[in-house]
Amino acid sequence: MLALTMGDPAGIGGEIAIKAWHTLRETGPAFVLLADPGWLRAQPGAVGLPIEIVHDPADAGFARALPVLKIPLARIAQAGEGDPANASAVTASIARAVALAQSGAVRGVVTNPISKAVLANAGFAYPGHTEYLGALIGTPGAEVMLLAGPSLRVVPVTVHVSLREALRTLTSEAIIRVARTTYAALKRDFGVADPVLAIAGLNPHAGEQGHMGEEEATLIEPAMGVLRGEGISLIGPMPPDTMFTPRARARYDAAICMYHDQALIPLKTLDMERGVNVTLGLGIVRTSPDHGTAFDIAGRGEADPTSLIEAIRLADRIARNRAANLKVHQ
Amino acid sequence: MLALTMGDPAGIGGEIAIKAWHTLRETGPAFVLLADPGWLRAQPGAVGLPIEIVHDPADAGFARALPVLKIPLARIAQAGEGDPANASAVTASIARAVALAQSGAVRGVVTNPISKAVLANAGFAYPGHTEYLGALIGTPGAEVMLLAGPSLRVVPVTVHVSLREALRTLTSEAIIRVARTTYAALKRDFGVADPVLAIAGLNPHAGEQGHMGEEEATLIEPAMGVLRGEGISLIGPMPPDTMFTPRARARYDAAICMYHDQALIPLKTLDMERGVNVTLGLGIVRTSPDHGTAFDIAGRGEADPTSLIEAIRLADRIARNRAANLKVHQ
Repeated sequence: MLALTMGDPAGIGGEIAIKAWHTLRETGPAFVLLADPGWLRAQPGAVGLPIEIVHDPADAGFARALPVLKIPLARIAQAGEGDPANASAVTASIARAVALAQSGAVRGVVTNPISKAVLANAGFAYPGHTEYLGALIGTPGAEVMLLAGPSLRVVPVTVHVSLREALRTLTSEAIIRVARTTYAALKRDFGVADPVLAIAGLNPHAGEQGHMGEEEATLIEPAMGVLRGEGISLIGPMPPDTMFTPRARARYDAAICMYHDQALIPLKTLDMERGVNVTLGLGIVRTSPDHGTAFDIAGRGEADPTSLIEAIRLADRIARNRAANLKVHQ
Repeated sequence: MLALTMGDPAGIGGEIAIKAWHTLRETGPAFVLLADPGWLRAQPGAVGLPIEIVHDPADAGFARALPVLKIPLARIAQAGEGDPANASAVTASIARAVALAQSGAVRGVVTNPISKAVLANAGFAYPGHTEYLGALIGTPGAEVMLLAGPSLRVVPVTVHVSLREALRTLTSEAIIRVARTTYAALKRDFGVADPVLAIAGLNPHAGEQGHMGEEEATLIEPAMGVLRGEGISLIGPMPPDTMFTPRARARYDAAICMYHDQALIPLKTLDMERGVNVTLGLGIVRTSPDHGTAFDIAGRGEADPTSLIEAIRLADRIARNRAANLKVHQ
């Protein structure tokens, strides 16, 4: 059993949860939705939907009804209109899911999209889910965001900051930390026996021997030296523009990228629908769809559940791989 | 007739020129290669190749032989070993091609890849072809680099500089200049009747209303205001990571990007083989394949001529569109 958070109740989270249940009810993976049942019944596709309110995820019979663990909203949510009054329910859904995972009641957490702008109006101080989860679990700064698509995994070293701030805060230490966490996760969570990491350059042509930037020599190569000393297989610093072609991607299991868009542009350009966001370094298993609240289409029944379904499947695979690894090492 | 430069004689330029001639000899577009005939005969695929040395491109019979306008090398070129002694022949080939285009003897110039590192050792002071051509023609700073793939055109505002330097030198004026030149070229050179430009944000999520960077508000939106005032259709500032999906690409004719890899990552990730580099703002027509000298595979016969062939075809289409537009306006 996995826990699925409500996300912003004015977004598409409820609609795609219902669609995901229809797709997965017979085959699994099973999930319990942490949300307001009244809100769920007002979502597109909810007419005639069997819902079962549960108090313990273990009681859920996923094939016969969508299990809901009740998190009441403060106000009725209007599709497309984010409401700070519901911010505490949104964050409570996340916190409850994390607690269930930490206690072992669920094997992992899948989060529906939240609106940082709406939450910020209610005093929420985190740039996104990933950082909030790190703080909730008591591992702030250890969290690493991995994006997994059908043919590419990317991990940005700097994440939700301006490009200027990314340049200011990129360090060898950050590259080393992110690469170590990714390497361990590829083995433990993704079942890659002997992972190879691609390390992106920061500058055009990876700096072209210092003609177009120095960070490859001053930050990236020293970090690669440390990582190689630990036995981690690496290639790079790779010219950013040619490292995402099919031939280049065949050479590595994940690309360590220096800034948000260096990672996200190729991932979303290659496959917008099936990208999944995975948070590493938390202890618990956590995935999420790789899109936002989609306020612009909320309430219409047009939302695509593919990324959420892939996120549920990937959380399940990671949990299984971890359990299998634990057995091997016992 | 088009002029094709030799590129670095230690690279794959000769080999792909021969392959391009075989593909295009019956159908055209015709080209004359500005190179050393002795060097050409030593390239992969040259055995039995009919070569015709010409003094005037107009004399060339493209279907019966590969026409060569002689530019002697100083030294025999060894595949894969760039030699500064041949730098003056490399630059002479470019300069001669430009002169032929300026005189009307050819309709456009296609350039084979050069090695900046090899040329720099011989005192060449330009970051690349594009800047050298701007200086040759007397339009330094007016040149704009457009990359055209089968499903995407991108134009970086800052080009061959470090990411740090790109942030330092990005201005509203540069965005306006590049967008104006691109808009005019889409109409005149690419035959787009009513072009729409996508303007990329600089920061993740296009700055997310100032939460992740301010350049969208301080530089990009003011530039967009000026351009809209001139009647140019624009969308943006677009979040960089989602603007290259098929659905997003359908909304515009070219993407104006803020830095090299923001433009080049999606272009090369989508289609490494068929990207073509077009220099706008020069007066003359100039295209080139979107890859380097490939010293690592030079001399082996393995080089892929697809991008060069597409570059030759695109130079021909641009020249035809310009001629047609001139007729319309006469």
